[in-house]
Amino acid sequence: MNQQATDFSVIGTRPPRVDAAEKVIGRAKYGMDAQVPGVTYGKVLRSPHAHARIVSIDTGKAEALAGVYAVVTADDLLSPETREKLREEDNIHALREYELTLAHDKVLFEGHPIAAVAARTPTLAEQAVKLIEVEYEVLPAVVGILDAMRDDAPLLHEMMHTESLAGKSEKPSNVASYFQQIKGDPEQGFAKADVVVEREFRSLMVHQGYIEPHAATAEWSPTGKLTLYTTTQGTFAVRDHVVSLLHIPMSDTRVISLEVGGAFGGKNNSFVDAVAALLARKARRPVKVTMSRAETLLGTGPSSGTVIRVKMGATREGHITATQATLYYEAGAYPGSPVGSGVNVMFGPYDISHVQVEGYDIVNNKPPIASYRAPGATPANFAIEVVIDEIAEKIGMDPLEFRLLNSAREGTEQIFGEIHHDIGAIEVLEAAKAHPHYSAPLAGSSKDGRRGRGVAHGYWGNWGARSSCTITVNPDGTVALVTGSVDVTGTRTSLAMQAAEILCLDLDQVKSSVGDTDNIGYSDVSAGSRTTIATGQAVIQAAQEVIAKMCARAATIWEVPVETITFEGGIFATNADKKKRMTFAELAAQLPQTGNTVIGVANVDVREWGAAFGTHIVDVEVDPETGLVTLLRYTAVQDVGKAIHPTQVEGQIQGGAVQGIGWALYEGYTYNAEGKLLNPNFLDYKLPTALDVPPIDTVIVEVPYPKHPFGARGVGEVPIIPPPAAIANAIYRAIGARVDVLPMTPGRILEAMGVMG
Amino acid sequence: MNQQATDFSVIGTRPPRVDAAEKVIGRAKYGMDAQVPGVTYGKVLRSPHAHARIVSIDTGKAEALAGVYAVVTADDLLSPETREKLREEDNIHALREYELTLAHDKVLFEGHPIAAVAARTPTLAEQAVKLIEVEYEVLPAVVGILDAMRDDAPLLHEMMHTESLAGKSEKPSNVASYFQQIKGDPEQGFAKADVVVEREFRSLMVHQGYIEPHAATAEWSPTGKLTLYTTTQGTFAVRDHVVSLLHIPMSDTRVISLEVGGAFGGKNNSFVDAVAALLARKARRPVKVTMSRAETLLGTGPSSGTVIRVKMGATREGHITATQATLYYEAGAYPGSPVGSGVNVMFGPYDISHVQVEGYDIVNNKPPIASYRAPGATPANFAIEVVIDEIAEKIGMDPLEFRLLNSAREGTEQIFGEIHHDIGAIEVLEAAKAHPHYSAPLAGSSKDGRRGRGVAHGYWGNWGARSSCTITVNPDGTVALVTGSVDVTGTRTSLAMQAAEILCLDLDQVKSSVGDTDNIGYSDVSAGSRTTIATGQAVIQAAQEVIAKMCARAATIWEVPVETITFEGGIFATNADKKKRMTFAELAAQLPQTGNTVIGVANVDVREWGAAFGTHIVDVEVDPETGLVTLLRYTAVQDVGKAIHPTQVEGQIQGGAVQGIGWALYEGYTYNAEGKLLNPNFLDYKLPTALDVPPIDTVIVEVPYPKHPFGARGVGEVPIIPPPAAIANAIYRAIGARVDVLPMTPGRILEAMGVMG
Repeated sequence: MNQQATDFSVIGTRPPRVDAAEKVIGRAKYGMDAQVPGVTYGKVLRSPHAHARIVSIDTGKAEALAGVYAVVTADDLLSPETREKLREEDNIHALREYELTLAHDKVLFEGHPIAAVAARTPTLAEQAVKLIEVEYEVLPAVVGILDAMRDDAPLLHEMMHTESLAGKSEKPSNVASYFQQIKGDPEQGFAKADVVVEREFRSLMVHQGYIEPHAATAEWSPTGKLTLYTTTQGTFAVRDHVVSLLHIPMSDTRVISLEVGGAFGGKNNSFVDAVAALLARKARRPVKVTMSRAETLLGTGPSSGTVIRVKMGATREGHITATQATLYYEAGAYPGSPVGSGVNVMFGPYDISHVQVEGYDIVNNKPPIASYRAPGATPANFAIEVVIDEIAEKIGMDPLEFRLLNSAREGTEQIFGEIHHDIGAIEVLEAAKAHPHYSAPLAGSSKDGRRGRGVAHGYWGNWGARSSCTITVNPDGTVALVTGSVDVTGTRTSLAMQAAEILCLDLDQVKSSVGDTDNIGYSDVSAGSRTTIATGQAVIQAAQEVIAKMCARAATIWEVPVETITFEGGIFATNADKKKRMTFAELAAQLPQTGNTVIGVANVDVREWGAAFGTHIVDVEVDPETGLVTLLRYTAVQDVGKAIHPTQVEGQIQGGAVQGIGWALYEGYTYNAEGKLLNPNFLDYKLPTALDVPPIDTVIVEVPYPKHPFGARGVGEVPIIPPPAAIANAIYRAIGARVDVLPMTPGRILEAMGVMG
Repeated sequence: MNQQATDFSVIGTRPPRVDAAEKVIGRAKYGMDAQVPGVTYGKVLRSPHAHARIVSIDTGKAEALAGVYAVVTADDLLSPETREKLREEDNIHALREYELTLAHDKVLFEGHPIAAVAARTPTLAEQAVKLIEVEYEVLPAVVGILDAMRDDAPLLHEMMHTESLAGKSEKPSNVASYFQQIKGDPEQGFAKADVVVEREFRSLMVHQGYIEPHAATAEWSPTGKLTLYTTTQGTFAVRDHVVSLLHIPMSDTRVISLEVGGAFGGKNNSFVDAVAALLARKARRPVKVTMSRAETLLGTGPSSGTVIRVKMGATREGHITATQATLYYEAGAYPGSPVGSGVNVMFGPYDISHVQVEGYDIVNNKPPIASYRAPGATPANFAIEVVIDEIAEKIGMDPLEFRLLNSAREGTEQIFGEIHHDIGAIEVLEAAKAHPHYSAPLAGSSKDGRRGRGVAHGYWGNWGARSSCTITVNPDGTVALVTGSVDVTGTRTSLAMQAAEILCLDLDQVKSSVGDTDNIGYSDVSAGSRTTIATGQAVIQAAQEVIAKMCARAATIWEVPVETITFEGGIFATNADKKKRMTFAELAAQLPQTGNTVIGVANVDVREWGAAFGTHIVDVEVDPETGLVTLLRYTAVQDVGKAIHPTQVEGQIQGGAVQGIGWALYEGYTYNAEGKLLNPNFLDYKLPTALDVPPIDTVIVEVPYPKHPFGARGVGEVPIIPPPAAIANAIYRAIGARVDVLPMTPGRILEAMGVMG
């Protein structure tokens, strides 16, 4: 469905991805494929305890092992004086970066890095790590979310006080921050309700599940220039992180990104880059550090587990009168859960006059959380969309109709005061409602199962931020396009398409690549669904500069005023002399002899961006004997503004939905009471596989976002949001019972059905 | 001696070279150090004959050898149809590129590439090369210069006719081109002369003698993107060469230069890049091709051997009345000797009213010549400066005084019509004359030797051409400087100094690097003494753009008109509010939050450049029994405009002088009558070593070149020009006999002394 007039040549087509062939035949180089002559191997010693004081570290035996080139601890990173200063300043955010690189006084989660070794072989490095002797004073750990808020809970950070609008709390606490937001008069709203539903939902910490673990290879030149080969969502983020920890000039740090084998927010943060650099500096040799799967699950940044309470009232006619919600998000060992984002996403799709909401950011003895695709959104959406489903059912209204009735639209004020503009919420809900899937008959129970259909509706705001692009014209009419945005989703292709569109070139004349920190301008991480749209704007601006410079050159060559030059359909011409015409390639061929090549450069900071909505429809079958949920049919409808590359858009929607399905049915960190992770591997931490997922039908809705030249919106995050709620609602229709905990494992299904428990 | 007021902070200082440490400790990576996983090894089969027709090539046995991945011949490069087309077009310049990559019908010199092999190991590749069976029809070879002009000489190119102003010759010839230039009335000039000297000089083909042989590593991506790691003076030149031979898009070809272990013009041309690319494409694996020393001497491009006749007349008062010269330059197997440059250099230093000169470009069965530091200049200077010395002696005038009397100056018209402007010829000659060395007593013969002092004066025009630069400002106030100019002489440092000067930064805040063809704009080869001066202008322009953009940002931040912003001494300020000030670093730190970073880009084509003069003084001692020449003292005086980095300027002057000394006394290709090179190694082809060379005293004269912002002139080429003439003139003063053949070996000295021959 394309609601925009299309007069594009390249935008909206489906060319092969420029990185496809290399990846398919196994020639693409990922983080751990960095090849540096004379490389040595780094290994990190990690805490076996969830909470302990480090009494002493003895690296003597490790250092004495033949073939060991360096052993580093926090002392190599941060002097005790600096640490004391940061503690006095109560600067937990700075301390976080240091302490997560190498723990200082305390370890705060199982897997917390303590020391690292560089040795001739990986085996030697592992042996050496085992020779490091650490004396711990084991402390009681707190692993629950609400448990961490109890007065008698062990404190992770003795100096941390709860921050809120009221200032800092008197007593230290594991609650890093608290906020309350009120809109309208919730009490009055609830008074008007005919129906009120109140429920509590829980979800577990989940991992982004990227297949490629973190890997970094660091090499120092004799003059102190650091080169880092890494797998990341942002080379400049890695640079900023490493230079701040190692106190080196930015221009002495070159970060080169290799291909990224999955990221989903988990590679916004840097986990082994600084350690590799530190080891390499001390060893005076290049050092490669790669994480194992267990290290990846234990020692990186998953997404918060949550406890969310929602109370919603509505009239019999289907009007939501008030909503109250309390969100408890765990942050792991350091503050920073996406609880605010959870609140925003929860209320973004609807126009509700009376709202009261509270949010808690809570530390506990688990890995400090990082971004995961639409950070904080999925559990919050799960909570509100299940409640909405229940209300719709209670008042006997079609659940999409109910959502349409309460939908946000042009001018709706969001919970934190922002105003919705140019959104496609209604269009998406209408498209879902009109889709054959929604009205297809759902067969009754199959022989052994019960079937149900569920829907959920989700929202995510995009991001803009800083992007840089350089376009160089070659004399043969091809152009080299370099951006600073790491390609995690096929953006080399989607960005090249935008350049080709502006320059009136065939796509294969645009060679698209990702620059490193030495040869392209600052670019923020590839995250927040921003790359195609925000870096796209840098690309468009650079392409326009190329055209402007080529027009000027044509004017010089033809000796006519530049104002007379036109560029249309790939042809430079002049109003001053109708006989003069040059194709892009013809003018490109003349550049070397008329003043050298032409380069367009853009360094942008995009401050306005769109928002996007998606509605998912799912049919499930529940085996009443085993509780196994099978997905029968899945349809994802989403407003993408303008699909630059529809196949990639569909791929994003499908991939997001699959990760949402994992969150719904399979995934979750399981801890024992001492804070030991029981499933640090991909056998026990189950990701959905091809066998678990039906074909995901995608429906592209195009409500152009007017502030992007091609109307594009971010795509990647929306589709991970609705699956758990849609599946929970379908399960309810199948079994007549609501499941309020993620993942909805067979055991929990049986429990909900009263078979167990 | 610095004749210019200096108010520079960085220009004119002597900081360590940015590449020094890596090179000193052996960590710098040169051409053959490219590391590509899975690399295989290429080897080239070369002709053992100087002239032969290729009857057949059978690669069957080579291809059948286990571990051989590809064998290529000219058929893989050029279809017979294309070749026929180029022959019909008489396009010898296009054919040259193909045939020098892989010979087609004929081989034209010993070492001419015929086929190439890629194999698992270098040893296997060498074995496979020996299994290629080539049937030759050996043809008579011509190796002399004048011999090649004889009517009965074997023709190298049956279709080549002599080009001249009169058009093409009727008969095919080994003379590729001929020119005659007349200025004034030479006959009348000679009639006014009191003294006339006429002599013939000869010189041998010499090699640039770079220590690092050519090496290239080629890798193709599955989508057809070629990456080439190479050692070159110009990445874009390699790109243009390879894409034209292999018919691939420029944007699909990335050329990365590694450190260059000497070049001196010999790495302007590409010798193994296309073969490596061709092999890698056929083998579907990366291929590294490295030359041996013998291959480097046989199969690359040395400088022309010459025969030069000079006739000069002068009055008793020291005024040159007329000069006649004929220059025969051999081009090796394909046209293109620097005979025109020889003529230009010969007459550039002087103001002579009546001149007649002829030049011949002659092919013979030797390697096709390439550039060598001041191409064509040294033998031409040798000829005229020895004649001048003889005339000065004959009229009893001090040789520098004689040169001063006839020196070119502001407004002097050169032989090809150009006018000298802003030159420092007089200043250099005066400085040499005033130097203590020139007036120091020269002790009479030592016990066993005879001593003499000689001088010679030389000239070289610089080059400008295309250069590109990008400067990126980092938030910590450091900047990244990228240019497209390969650093063969320390230009990363001299360019960084120019950026630091404009940006008011310390040099260590400017991180200078060389971009590859994917990430920097077109840049011509680092040659013609152009990099510091022409790329310097790109650097200055990019730095000025950075300042302009930062001024605009300051205006935005302060909310004042941009016209009120000033940048002086590293401080941004505004006339609108005297209290507002920011250092460069303070403003840099604000860039990320105020619209993203600032980048300055310049792509220039420098069309005006200066010229430079040098005078050398040398004292020699000749052993009358062995003919051995020992250099006792050496002083080189040179106008450099403004010494950006005086230590590097001195190094260039010393290095050039040493190469000139090699040309004077030691170096030369020695052929037998069949065209076989007798000295293809560094034992028999003797380069001067530290033991052969005295300390070279340098005197920097600074006559600013007004069209360069800092007044700089090119430095690198002038100093190779005067040594042979200066030494020959000194030898004459020592032994009373003139030597007119280079190199002036002990045998030739004895011959001149009448001891032999």
